[in-house]
Amino acid sequence: MLINQNNLPEPPYCAVIFTSIRSGNDENSYGFMAEEMERLAEAQEGYLGIQSISDGLKSITVSYWKDEKSIALWKNNSEHLTAQEKGQSLWYEHYTIQIAKVERAYEF
Amino acid sequence: MLINQNNLPEPPYCAVIFTSIRSGNDENSYGFMAEEMERLAEAQEGYLGIQSISDGLKSITVSYWKDEKSIALWKNNSEHLTAQEKGQSLWYEHYTIQIAKVERAYEF
Repeated sequence: MLINQNNLPEPPYCAVIFTSIRSGNDENSYGFMAEEMERLAEAQEGYLGIQSISDGLKSITVSYWKDEKSIALWKNNSEHLTAQEKGQSLWYEHYTIQIAKVERAYEF
Repeated sequence: MLINQNNLPEPPYCAVIFTSIRSGNDENSYGFMAEEMERLAEAQEGYLGIQSISDGLKSITVSYWKDEKSIALWKNNSEHLTAQEKGQSLWYEHYTIQIAKVERAYEF
């Protein structure tokens, strides 16, 4: 689910701001993993939605979660753990992860 | 300043997650305003940095601020207020703004 169409959750909720610069190594396997992770995240308890934009190898992805507990469950999902390891060894040159609590939300 | 090069601030700090779909109207004036707003934000007290990616008319921009007070000052900056009005009447088809407090941050 994309949070872009008049359907912001009611605060408070949590956001994981993930920014990355990919190495360009093995982009096919990266694409397969990214789709698989999105499918898994959607099935995870507490998942609220995602906003993501890429420009070449650079991306910003913000995923939204009900609470800290749902983020912790997602972080420790076994398939996601495997993807995190492969991300560091293969796909990503650099990334940042910021965990935040959304306190107010507006849209136009 | 881009927060992408091993220089994340020390939490807690605040993030403004701004996602937008532009209308495509008057993209020249949009580009001029966007540069001007970035310049003004950088000069604003409490500004910590920005991460932004666009894909055609879609963008995600996350700006980082020391605290709620610096966000309020930026929101009410007179040139920024003018840009906000013109944004609604001219440049943006849809946008979301989420104000969040960053509690943890990591990078690789």
